[in-house]
Amino acid sequence: MLAHAHDPEDPRAALRALEKKLLSMPPVRALALHVNAYDGEVLQFTAPLAANVNDKGSAFGGSLASLMTLAAWGLTTLQLDAAGLVAEVYVQDSQLRYLKPLYDELRIEARLAPGQDWRTFLATFAARGKARATLMAEVRDASGALVTAFDGRFVALRPLACGPAGP
Amino acid sequence: MLAHAHDPEDPRAALRALEKKLLSMPPVRALALHVNAYDGEVLQFTAPLAANVNDKGSAFGGSLASLMTLAAWGLTTLQLDAAGLVAEVYVQDSQLRYLKPLYDELRIEARLAPGQDWRTFLATFAARGKARATLMAEVRDASGALVTAFDGRFVALRPLACGPAGP
Repeated sequence: MLAHAHDPEDPRAALRALEKKLLSMPPVRALALHVNAYDGEVLQFTAPLAANVNDKGSAFGGSLASLMTLAAWGLTTLQLDAAGLVAEVYVQDSQLRYLKPLYDELRIEARLAPGQDWRTFLATFAARGKARATLMAEVRDASGALVTAFDGRFVALRPLACGPAGP
Repeated sequence: MLAHAHDPEDPRAALRALEKKLLSMPPVRALALHVNAYDGEVLQFTAPLAANVNDKGSAFGGSLASLMTLAAWGLTTLQLDAAGLVAEVYVQDSQLRYLKPLYDELRIEARLAPGQDWRTFLATFAARGKARATLMAEVRDASGALVTAFDGRFVALRPLACGPAGP
């Protein structure tokens, strides 16, 4: 049987480990992201505007794209980790809609898309070593208006038993 | 009549100006991009893998998304500038497909999508102060295989005559 998808023992340790892993990548470190909150279903990142500003003084679209992709990737990774499953997670495709400029802190929320469920995803991965999920992410401004919407397909694969040597 | 879309006097100056503008944005500076080549139709960026690497040693999807968006944005901006048109260019939406990992330098090429033409786009903008174009961008590896494909819609808007004060 699968472990509960939300580790009840130390959920904060999982978030700290995710943040550390993300910040180990140079292009992600530049985004100055913070893994802010997670309730088992919704993963929230924040990032300062100053590190992610474009020539118009608003949030850079590339930063929004990166952060939304990472939040969805991170949520998928947290679900697998909490179930005790070892996987590599890859983004396969994504759609982004940029609806209005953002002049505030970047606040990203990622969750599973409607019609998907983690139980099926995790059971499929456990049985086949491969599973796909569609996730969505949103950025809203301080008034609650939708700034940017993302949806993307992610695939989890069981790592090869004999991978290439080296770090 | 519109100016020729490719400034015959000093095309390199336009590329240097574009690169300088892009690198003035903190999240873009982190990508270490270089505006590499432009023939009037295809704009090519390069960026080192080291600045854009993920936890698997391959190119980070967020960097690819940012660079492809920027290359398409930059091409649209170059076309407007060369025609002597003052505009703000915004990305409206985009689709990305991640087909395989990349372990080389990132080399991005952006161009107009099939069925579009710059002459119509520039004439529409000149007449109405607003025009839309669909662009595509590709990243290929050293063997020529397609790594990531992007398409996105961009809108050019005439700047407000009385914008907010300040830099």
